[in-house]
Amino acid sequence: MPKKTNDALRIGMAGIGTVGAAVARLLRSNRDAIADRAGRPIEITAVAARDKTKRRDCDLSGARWCDDPSELATASDVDVVVELMGGAQGSAFELCKAALACGRPVATANKALLAAHGIALAALAEGNRTPLMFEAAVAGGIPVIKTVRESLAGNRISCAQGILNGTCNYILSRMFAEGLDFATVLADAQKLGYAESDPAADVDGHDTAHKLAILAALAFGTAPDVKSIALDGIRRVSPLDLRFAAEMGYRVKLIGSARLTENGLEQRVGPCLVPLSSPLASVDGSLNAVTLRGDAVGEIALSGRGAGGDPTASAVVADLIDIARGRAPLPFSVPSDRLKIRAATPPEKRTGCWYIRLQVSDKPGVVADVSAILRDENISIESLLQHGRSPTDSVPVVLATHETDEAAMAKAIGKISALPAVKESPCRMRIETETI
Amino acid sequence: MPKKTNDALRIGMAGIGTVGAAVARLLRSNRDAIADRAGRPIEITAVAARDKTKRRDCDLSGARWCDDPSELATASDVDVVVELMGGAQGSAFELCKAALACGRPVATANKALLAAHGIALAALAEGNRTPLMFEAAVAGGIPVIKTVRESLAGNRISCAQGILNGTCNYILSRMFAEGLDFATVLADAQKLGYAESDPAADVDGHDTAHKLAILAALAFGTAPDVKSIALDGIRRVSPLDLRFAAEMGYRVKLIGSARLTENGLEQRVGPCLVPLSSPLASVDGSLNAVTLRGDAVGEIALSGRGAGGDPTASAVVADLIDIARGRAPLPFSVPSDRLKIRAATPPEKRTGCWYIRLQVSDKPGVVADVSAILRDENISIESLLQHGRSPTDSVPVVLATHETDEAAMAKAIGKISALPAVKESPCRMRIETETI
Repeated sequence: MPKKTNDALRIGMAGIGTVGAAVARLLRSNRDAIADRAGRPIEITAVAARDKTKRRDCDLSGARWCDDPSELATASDVDVVVELMGGAQGSAFELCKAALACGRPVATANKALLAAHGIALAALAEGNRTPLMFEAAVAGGIPVIKTVRESLAGNRISCAQGILNGTCNYILSRMFAEGLDFATVLADAQKLGYAESDPAADVDGHDTAHKLAILAALAFGTAPDVKSIALDGIRRVSPLDLRFAAEMGYRVKLIGSARLTENGLEQRVGPCLVPLSSPLASVDGSLNAVTLRGDAVGEIALSGRGAGGDPTASAVVADLIDIARGRAPLPFSVPSDRLKIRAATPPEKRTGCWYIRLQVSDKPGVVADVSAILRDENISIESLLQHGRSPTDSVPVVLATHETDEAAMAKAIGKISALPAVKESPCRMRIETETI
Repeated sequence: MPKKTNDALRIGMAGIGTVGAAVARLLRSNRDAIADRAGRPIEITAVAARDKTKRRDCDLSGARWCDDPSELATASDVDVVVELMGGAQGSAFELCKAALACGRPVATANKALLAAHGIALAALAEGNRTPLMFEAAVAGGIPVIKTVRESLAGNRISCAQGILNGTCNYILSRMFAEGLDFATVLADAQKLGYAESDPAADVDGHDTAHKLAILAALAFGTAPDVKSIALDGIRRVSPLDLRFAAEMGYRVKLIGSARLTENGLEQRVGPCLVPLSSPLASVDGSLNAVTLRGDAVGEIALSGRGAGGDPTASAVVADLIDIARGRAPLPFSVPSDRLKIRAATPPEKRTGCWYIRLQVSDKPGVVADVSAILRDENISIESLLQHGRSPTDSVPVVLATHETDEAAMAKAIGKISALPAVKESPCRMRIETETI
């Protein structure tokens, strides 16, 4: 940490993509206001990135170029390392480890790194009495990390859930608004730059899972545990499902949710039906939102832009101001050796309501067969919709169930899939009733 | 500040009403988790309140009783003063001044005090290098103070607005849902304990104004300025207005809003029409919500329980944990002597769209007269609704205008009121288009 508070806080930034350039722009455009709030100027003095010659939408003329990012960990003209390279392993991990090991504060937006190595890095930060900050890693500009870590610190939190991936929310919102299928909207989103050319990290839920693991760790005082997250993406959601859900009073969103119950920690990522009364239901386009339930505060909801250069830069700079002011907290709110290991809830103890869409041959008796299977598994039907008739093609039958356990549901789905009249693998989504 | 971090942080609490009792319960029920996050236990060691004999829903057996709250400012068994007495002057002000003057941290939920004396208290706190914390003063459990002060510290904020009074939101929500008039719902709310027997502070907008002044001070780096807030309450809103607004795609909410424009600081409190697409529109019952717009973060929204014992206690305890961890920031984010005086926007520079309901005699020509007056003031009509006919009684005519300045609108309303066919004083509300 710098010694004199009237000296500038000198930033070494590794990675100058969209977010890095936005951080540089923000530190420049709001320079005086930031200095007022930080108690000293904040300046980028050194940068490292893959390609020195790349044109970037920011002025880094005052910063020294480093070919090797790891240099920033020990460089004498750097007080704080900002890590924006991404990736759970490799240079990002090495840089953060090296910086923290010599007592140099780190601010990072790297959710994959924190989900994989958050505890190890936190232990290093605590051992060296230096801050490890990561507001930008979850939900971009929405201050969810600080809210969970500090503002709700008096609460026992029982549930954290949210729309944590803007790409998926954009795709689902457009599929619903325009009645288009997943592949069409994905292709368009890729053309517009809203989705990566390899969309797997987003649309298969991995990005949401990383963010959820960090959120759950903070909320429940547990180590981030990506592996125990039940993971599902949005590829198999059809515009038909979005329409049926709307008819039943719901919206379909990719939800990451974590609950701490007496049966353990329940973490899941998947497309869900959320009731229109939930603050998550009306969060459209690329926006993100998070809801949190605490025993004292009740339920609170936060929404805003969860990705993109400027909103993410807002979070990075907030962390830098906290570091400049010396008010950085423990990375996971409690000492990392006090974080508990929480067992994942076993499937037979996980309960929920479900939406099921079947494509069936339009013959008498199919609904009777499906109903009998559900009855045998002790699953009761809350509603059933069957629109349109087609003696030749398959037609959709949609069911919503009452609360049931996941093991029973899996068994029933297996039997239903095996019925000759059921033409495709059933589409099944949780109905999230536990939002605000 | 206590010397040894393994010692308990000792709280002297003045005022043991709903919030005070909830703070005591929360510190007890989540004792271990709070100690983990605070780095030390937090204990109430001394209390002061008006009536020693009153039954309270909390266990204060470990705390010493003080007849005089001012004693807590200097008592040797107290590290931090929690001020929950309320009131802008008198004992609350004296206690906070005395505590800060001798370097003792203060956490308070007292919005009236902060709106009136926030700068003086902040200067005292800064001069004595001690924290003055007030998360609980605005929007209860919603961490809006910390969000503006810390999480958005890298941004220039241009707009802050919100539903900041749960009583008004409860009344308006029930008026809309049940078609009841203001007086009926108020009486019922008083019976249920949702409204005070003297409801003026809530329904006339004063409570919202106090909170808005604090929020604006933090958002814009200005001194809290309640006096320049254009103030209006909800008494004259009728269920008719709520229905017309809904028909036009809006909800009516009591909104406190503050904007920093090139023409000055524009602060107002009043019933407004917010579009259904706004996150404020779906915030019903006694919930509160705030939206903030920053140049980097874009727009973010926070919602939750804005009043009541437990949510407010959540905010007070978060402040105490910050104090225990030594991470308390400057009260208004920047040194109080750097807070700027911002001139209020003059009425002729304040612009907005308006909703106007007139009760008129059902005779030909009224709409023509009203339209002519608006045309003469250069106000253009966006929509006009006239439902129902009654040759004997007055009938409502509802107008929505395009953007116009407030001076022109005031002039037009004066002329319209003077028309013989206009039977009651017109009901006029802003249409808030600038929400997310």
